[in-house]
Amino acid sequence: MLPISVIYEPIQKDMAEVEESLRGTGGDDFLWMAEPLRYVVESGGKRIRPAVTLLVGKFYRCDHERLITLAAAVELFHTGTLVQDDAIDKSAMRRGKPTVNSLWGEGAAVLLGDYLFAKASELACSTGSLRVMSSFAETLKHLSSGELRQFVSAYDWRMEQQEYYKQIESKTASLFSVASRSAAILGEAPGEEEEAFRTYGHNLGMAFQIVDDILDFVGEEEELGKPVGNDLLQGTITLPAILLVEQRQGKPAIREMVQKKGDKVAVERVIDMIRSSDIIQECYRIADEFCAQARLALEGLPQNAYRKSLFDLTRFVIERRK
Amino acid sequence: MLPISVIYEPIQKDMAEVEESLRGTGGDDFLWMAEPLRYVVESGGKRIRPAVTLLVGKFYRCDHERLITLAAAVELFHTGTLVQDDAIDKSAMRRGKPTVNSLWGEGAAVLLGDYLFAKASELACSTGSLRVMSSFAETLKHLSSGELRQFVSAYDWRMEQQEYYKQIESKTASLFSVASRSAAILGEAPGEEEEAFRTYGHNLGMAFQIVDDILDFVGEEEELGKPVGNDLLQGTITLPAILLVEQRQGKPAIREMVQKKGDKVAVERVIDMIRSSDIIQECYRIADEFCAQARLALEGLPQNAYRKSLFDLTRFVIERRK
Repeated sequence: MLPISVIYEPIQKDMAEVEESLRGTGGDDFLWMAEPLRYVVESGGKRIRPAVTLLVGKFYRCDHERLITLAAAVELFHTGTLVQDDAIDKSAMRRGKPTVNSLWGEGAAVLLGDYLFAKASELACSTGSLRVMSSFAETLKHLSSGELRQFVSAYDWRMEQQEYYKQIESKTASLFSVASRSAAILGEAPGEEEEAFRTYGHNLGMAFQIVDDILDFVGEEEELGKPVGNDLLQGTITLPAILLVEQRQGKPAIREMVQKKGDKVAVERVIDMIRSSDIIQECYRIADEFCAQARLALEGLPQNAYRKSLFDLTRFVIERRK
Repeated sequence: MLPISVIYEPIQKDMAEVEESLRGTGGDDFLWMAEPLRYVVESGGKRIRPAVTLLVGKFYRCDHERLITLAAAVELFHTGTLVQDDAIDKSAMRRGKPTVNSLWGEGAAVLLGDYLFAKASELACSTGSLRVMSSFAETLKHLSSGELRQFVSAYDWRMEQQEYYKQIESKTASLFSVASRSAAILGEAPGEEEEAFRTYGHNLGMAFQIVDDILDFVGEEEELGKPVGNDLLQGTITLPAILLVEQRQGKPAIREMVQKKGDKVAVERVIDMIRSSDIIQECYRIADEFCAQARLALEGLPQNAYRKSLFDLTRFVIERRK
């Protein structure tokens, strides 16, 4: 597997500038915010979304400052969703560190999330493009409705693949899609290239989320930075569980888990059944299909180092262990 | 007291159009949302903020559709904050009806709030003005940091008037200010008029919040649609309590209330002390000062029916009983 640093090589300097811009987020309005903001913004993550923004922007003669700003906006947006998700799910850990809600309270986490959305919108505005701005607003609509879909269908073991794809499209792929497409907009890309980058982002995001959902079953707690089977414990039904329900022998185990909400033994039984079947392989096959679509979208675009990195990212999201 | 319908008379038709636009908010992305969205959007309220937007817009030759859209955006924004505030405070009632969080859960309320912010931003974008858009983003920053200030200073009985004004400026006046100013921006008002309307909105909003905080002490539960003394029970220290602490004899009662978090008897004792003093009068005097500033801001502007209504609103926010 190519390490992410190699994939980011053509945008190494820009990534450092994005990082610096992110560090400057801290609460000009209210000093108290500075600490939790710094905490979330600096708590790691692979920065895949802003990397996509930068790589796409490099195909065009984007104003450098604006491109950096846009990439930072994308990451802040993402950070806002993480902070609020953890508050809603009452999650204690993220990336091996205590969550904002566990350190500063759920209410504070919701409001810090709002602040991050606002800050991201402000940065998006400062790119001077109304289309970029409205694509951000649209994405926030998708993100919140996607999360709501997931929230509403908690413990719904009858959920079908189609509904799952709708959920991950809204809650994850929409942000990858805007990360990619907004840079094309900023670069005044021709319509078909903008569309190609949108397609790329969408499919990369779909694959990314499927792999995330796989890792929740097969990952190592140490690497994940959160407990294995966390989704199931929260009642979140993802692709592996859906595929298990589709197999006749899986249904009773899932049903029992749903009846005994939060029961760890019932959850572990489901995890074991999934691990000892070919479900994980099948999930990877599906994620790979999305990645193939992402690569296909790149085909008509100029061959350069940035395209190579976008290409390599489609492998990375599949092969990653966390 | 002039009834609000008389004040709204010059914009009666427009208000009906805004109402219609608000009713059209419901969850195109996810049908499940339609019900809670309709519920919050139609659950009354005086619609003061969009009325201000319309009245200001009428001074200029704004595009009619865009002005209606802007007013709807302002109200949706406000609605989003109410829904999230109630979720954060775990409030059960608002305007005499169960809150979204009590009907659909706190997580859903947070996400519906996000959706309302996103929808408001989308509408703001569709006015085609980047300045309108960025004033919205800036306002969301203020709102969330203001709420956070309040959240962090819960039960802080040492809070001073200055901090209180900062809080209500961020959490309330900033939205009144953008409601007023954004219509001036849309109308391409000269700089000094835009500033006059900003000042008007800011001061009207300050007075509005102070009166809100007064009513929490002196209002009737039936009229308020929520329990009297609700703020204190939540630990929210507002102007009347701050003034009580400033009086030597008030300090022990407040201290006791803070020590016995959530104790109703201790809260009632504080309420009684405030009611039987001249504190409420003093709070009204302060609110009136802000209203006088709001009226002053209108002085240089053309005299017309809209200005008359904006003027009358400054009386209304003081005299209202709920």
